[in-house]
Amino acid sequence: MQLLYAAASPFARKVRVMASELGLLDAIVLIDSSVLPTRDNPEVSQANPLTKIPVLLTSDAGALYDSRVICEYLDNLHHGERLLPLEPSKRWPVLQLAALADGLMDAALLARYEGSARPAELQWPAWLEGQLSKIERALDHLEQQHARLHGPLDIAQIGVACALGYLDFRFADLAWREGRPNLAAFYEGFAQRPSMHASKPV
Amino acid sequence: MQLLYAAASPFARKVRVMASELGLLDAIVLIDSSVLPTRDNPEVSQANPLTKIPVLLTSDAGALYDSRVICEYLDNLHHGERLLPLEPSKRWPVLQLAALADGLMDAALLARYEGSARPAELQWPAWLEGQLSKIERALDHLEQQHARLHGPLDIAQIGVACALGYLDFRFADLAWREGRPNLAAFYEGFAQRPSMHASKPV
Repeated sequence: MQLLYAAASPFARKVRVMASELGLLDAIVLIDSSVLPTRDNPEVSQANPLTKIPVLLTSDAGALYDSRVICEYLDNLHHGERLLPLEPSKRWPVLQLAALADGLMDAALLARYEGSARPAELQWPAWLEGQLSKIERALDHLEQQHARLHGPLDIAQIGVACALGYLDFRFADLAWREGRPNLAAFYEGFAQRPSMHASKPV
Repeated sequence: MQLLYAAASPFARKVRVMASELGLLDAIVLIDSSVLPTRDNPEVSQANPLTKIPVLLTSDAGALYDSRVICEYLDNLHHGERLLPLEPSKRWPVLQLAALADGLMDAALLARYEGSARPAELQWPAWLEGQLSKIERALDHLEQQHARLHGPLDIAQIGVACALGYLDFRFADLAWREGRPNLAAFYEGFAQRPSMHASKPV
């Protein structure tokens, strides 16, 4: 398999951490493929007309995207405990928390595009503040719900950790740990995993 | 169950069409809850810290979001043919196409925010063009792959139809049918379903 990815993308990191935790990383060739919403990348567009990464090129299922579809596909390739639980009473809480992590990443990426990619004279403070408010509320919710991050490994923990790692990478000024000791403790532990070390953005 | 939704939201429409097709609409109370990225909506934020709709309030699984998680949850509540197939060789193509439809909606919403919500003097043509390019490429891909839209009902067909309906609603100028006769024919048929009629944005 081949993974179109970029080192800075939290969604691509989620896939890389997932693959690493499942022992599937050796089966995947990583292809550096950075994208921007304001620029075409024909190689990526050919695999995904949305020109977004990650994209997983497979022999049996073609070009798979987005990260959520890829993660579920990978979870189907191994015989250990599922990181997306199959049993409904376990599945919905995990998928909901994973969706929150994805939404946090989305808001952070939109905030990044607004504050860094867009020319300064075209920036709209209300938009940036709106995205930052989503991030703050999501972080507060995760702090309250931190107990849900301490079970057996699942896709929600991976998503939350990749979202927090992205905040450290691009929004250090947010100081997300302040007032959120339980979420900070979760991340400090999770960030020690080899899968997280190997995929840390620089 | 209660669904926080807005009539104009293509993601909320996808959930409503899904519920209608599954015969679950009578079990859901619709609660009109419009949101904007630049404005808080405390009622929605309390259920989903990302302040996005749709959110499904359930008695057994709490507040579920986003639309993809809700659709899978609803698909688990009935005993007919799954709209998200369980068998892997059928599941990945459907989830990939459904993800393309979601990405098309995302690009259309971002284009809408750029062109209509953002003050005119802060609009960035390159951003708008970038999102419109994603839409055009996604439409071209769907035209090429139209045969995949003609099997038994699935979540990909629902997603694509709701995305196209949103283009009709907000981007009539795009004239997406031009040069895409097969996609237009799919939509013309699909839009006749009572589930689509009942959820048409006005």
